[in-house]
Amino acid sequence: MTFTGEDHAYMARALALTARGRDTASPNPSVGCVIARAGKVLGEGWHERAGEAHAEVRAIAAAKESVEGATAYVTLEPCNHHGRTPPCVDALLAAKIGRVVAAMEDPNPLVKGKGAQRLRDAGVQVDVGLMQSEATEAHRGFVTRMTLGRPWMRIKSAASLDGRIALANGESQWITGEIARRDVHVLRARSCAMLTGIGTVLRDDPQLTVRHVPATRQPKRVLIDSRLDVPLEAKILQGEPPLIFTVSTDADKRKRIEATGAEVVTAPIDPKKPGKTDLVAIAQELGKRGFNEVTVETGAKLNGSLVAAGVIDELVLYFAPLVLGTGAQGLFDFPDLTSLSDAKRLRILDVRFVGEDLRLTARFGS
Amino acid sequence: MTFTGEDHAYMARALALTARGRDTASPNPSVGCVIARAGKVLGEGWHERAGEAHAEVRAIAAAKESVEGATAYVTLEPCNHHGRTPPCVDALLAAKIGRVVAAMEDPNPLVKGKGAQRLRDAGVQVDVGLMQSEATEAHRGFVTRMTLGRPWMRIKSAASLDGRIALANGESQWITGEIARRDVHVLRARSCAMLTGIGTVLRDDPQLTVRHVPATRQPKRVLIDSRLDVPLEAKILQGEPPLIFTVSTDADKRKRIEATGAEVVTAPIDPKKPGKTDLVAIAQELGKRGFNEVTVETGAKLNGSLVAAGVIDELVLYFAPLVLGTGAQGLFDFPDLTSLSDAKRLRILDVRFVGEDLRLTARFGS
Repeated sequence: MTFTGEDHAYMARALALTARGRDTASPNPSVGCVIARAGKVLGEGWHERAGEAHAEVRAIAAAKESVEGATAYVTLEPCNHHGRTPPCVDALLAAKIGRVVAAMEDPNPLVKGKGAQRLRDAGVQVDVGLMQSEATEAHRGFVTRMTLGRPWMRIKSAASLDGRIALANGESQWITGEIARRDVHVLRARSCAMLTGIGTVLRDDPQLTVRHVPATRQPKRVLIDSRLDVPLEAKILQGEPPLIFTVSTDADKRKRIEATGAEVVTAPIDPKKPGKTDLVAIAQELGKRGFNEVTVETGAKLNGSLVAAGVIDELVLYFAPLVLGTGAQGLFDFPDLTSLSDAKRLRILDVRFVGEDLRLTARFGS
Repeated sequence: MTFTGEDHAYMARALALTARGRDTASPNPSVGCVIARAGKVLGEGWHERAGEAHAEVRAIAAAKESVEGATAYVTLEPCNHHGRTPPCVDALLAAKIGRVVAAMEDPNPLVKGKGAQRLRDAGVQVDVGLMQSEATEAHRGFVTRMTLGRPWMRIKSAASLDGRIALANGESQWITGEIARRDVHVLRARSCAMLTGIGTVLRDDPQLTVRHVPATRQPKRVLIDSRLDVPLEAKILQGEPPLIFTVSTDADKRKRIEATGAEVVTAPIDPKKPGKTDLVAIAQELGKRGFNEVTVETGAKLNGSLVAAGVIDELVLYFAPLVLGTGAQGLFDFPDLTSLSDAKRLRILDVRFVGEDLRLTARFGS
């Protein structure tokens, strides 16, 4: 299949629409849809919130004239199953759409290709794969959850140019400037969950909420606390109740923490680290709960353990223009490498100024 | 004085010419000169090598017609003293130049303004200050030496994203890729001297020569070796003889090292660090020897001591897309800070991809 320039233009528009539901559609993907005929856009739609209409249904409804014979451009293969709303395939067939262009197949191996097949069986032309890498990027949280069973996991940290996130005495507020700190809240807003560790709670007592940018939904706050050491007055126990993973069997501590509203979940013990939670199992549990994107804000220990466990997809590092020296606290604590060839390699995607600081985005894997 | 668009265009050209002598003019500044009249360039020149003609003289000689009444655009105030060549002011007067536009005054407080004054006394219109910040940048090595008495000093290092320059076991070759390593040789080529410490020599045995880019001049290699521990077979003792600073009084060691051709200089002892060389005094000595730009390639200890001593102007950090962990070696070893407000702040000037790595340039001071 070769796609025309017009096809590309409409799909690019459908991809742009994914941003509208990005912070709210979870656990669903924030699909975008454009319906066009003979060089004219008839309707646009996006998926804004689980339980509400999908992008295709909204695009059909938005059209002021019949969409019969028109082409629907969707960033993900239309669904063919009843979830909280009826299948989009039914809506497209009912509206007599003539052609469907999907950027990518449904990443769920169990449903992949079935929506397209049903449309084809009903005589609709279906072309899949236009701007697939862009769509994979736009839906990367959902795609990761469908294919790996865990969320897209991102470590965010703020460091000096020599990679230090706090002084030896613990002082870390503020290494980066105000513009970088506000930028972090954009990351938080698009995250389904914020993950931190007990060390960070004891040291910095963060709120981990979205504050400096508009947000209609707060991310779930998740704490890894092997021994249930979280103080009852910690900020993470205030406001929306958090999710706490532990391997502690102390029933009294658990009861006191649960009394604040928090959900305490007993995680498997890491087979290699007695007394520690199994981070791979926790990542899978976060996937089961429908979190598409998780942002980690924590210290060197948990950062390092998560990287070593292979459950981190992306680093977003803010670099402030100062040097703090080798006595200051580092970014990733994991066992010493014996050879540079053993180092986990990333790919730097993007680097840009945010105020006087830099924001660097890098990804593991290919 | 307001300058015209034409003035700006010719001065921009004169500034571009400074690049031609950049790697070779030392200890002189690599001045550029354009001579123009009525919208036409009559001659161009640049200073290529100490002892050879200055930019103004070359520009006059390059003109194919008389330059009488023309304007000379020079990136630095013309000199009015006899060095290894006669004063440029004499040449400009002999050629009957009508107007001189200089980007900046001579930074040497002893001669500043004198060249301009003598031209004015002879009836030549002299306008100073066009694109002054660009000229200060182009001549920053010379300007620093004239104003602070020491060279412009730049630390170059290659690190992982978490600021680690070597594994705990010392392995550091190669953290960055081939394109970044070649880029380093461009920095070396423009440096009058390369500075390293004995720790780096014992660990990595570097050559510190310019190899992967064309070079008509090799930088002087300078080693700080407090106890004269340099092995006689070290690569830095091969090829062009290096300069070694020490506080050792071991006459036998000194004799053996001098027998390789190296110059051994006894440095003052750091008043705060018994047994260590005084880095401020060494920087001044490098200035006295006419080095305009010095690039430092060494480990965390000397890097940290130089930053703490306040003799570093610029960091050029190559970041490779990998993480090495907190056990790996850091960038700057200096005493722990007790407050973030005590941290030395920089300004990030530039960041760009070199292959798959990043190169970040940041400067101390305002």
